[in-house]
Amino acid sequence: MITRTNEQSKSVREYMRGGKKHVELTALSKELPENARLFSKLTLVPGASIGYHVHENETELFYFMEGCARVQDDDKFYDVTAGDSMATSSGHGHSVENTGDHDLVILAVIVKD
Amino acid sequence: MITRTNEQSKSVREYMRGGKKHVELTALSKELPENARLFSKLTLVPGASIGYHVHENETELFYFMEGCARVQDDDKFYDVTAGDSMATSSGHGHSVENTGDHDLVILAVIVKD
Repeated sequence: MITRTNEQSKSVREYMRGGKKHVELTALSKELPENARLFSKLTLVPGASIGYHVHENETELFYFMEGCARVQDDDKFYDVTAGDSMATSSGHGHSVENTGDHDLVILAVIVKD
Repeated sequence: MITRTNEQSKSVREYMRGGKKHVELTALSKELPENARLFSKLTLVPGASIGYHVHENETELFYFMEGCARVQDDDKFYDVTAGDSMATSSGHGHSVENTGDHDLVILAVIVKD
C-alpha cells in the first residue's frame, strides 16, 4: 500500500512528555504492521524537546534525518546530528532536544517486544 | 544506544532480488529489536532496481527520503517521490526502480509478524 505525502495525517503534541514547545508528528503510513505502533516523522522547531521517558515492552528507533540535537540515553547525554541513529529498548529511557538553528527531523519507529 | 554515521555498516548487493545494477545498504543501528530484522538506508543510483519479491511473515515499510521511483505493489505500478511511503505486508510483493536522475534513498524497516 502506497501512502502519499498528502495522505499522511499530522498532529501536534504540546510539551510532549514534559518537553518544551511542541512536536509535529506525521504518520507516514496508513497501514502499520501488528508489531509496530509508530512509523512517523517527528519535527521539532529550534528549542523544542521531548521530555525523558522510559519505554516498556517495546523498542523505539530514531533516525536523525535533519538538524542536530542533544539526547539523553538513560543517564548519559550525547550530541547527535543528521545521519546518526538511536535505539531505546524496553526498560530504557530517552529524551531529545533540538539544540540547532533549524528544524530537527527524526524518523521514529516503535516495534513491540 | 547511539549509532554514529561512521559506525553504520555498509554493504553492496548486486542485482538485488534480480534487479538492475546494485543497491548500497547502510545498517543504521548496531542494535535491532527482536521483532525487526532490518532498519537500513537503501541507496540506488539512477537506473538501479530491486526486483519483485514477496514478503512472508513480515512487513516491510519504505519511506522515500530522496529521489523518485517506479514501484510495483502486487500487480499495480505507481510513481512515487520523496515523502511518500509504502507498506508491503505478509503475502504481498513489491519492486522498486530508480527512474530519476539522482540517487534514490529509502529508509526501510522490516517488522516480523
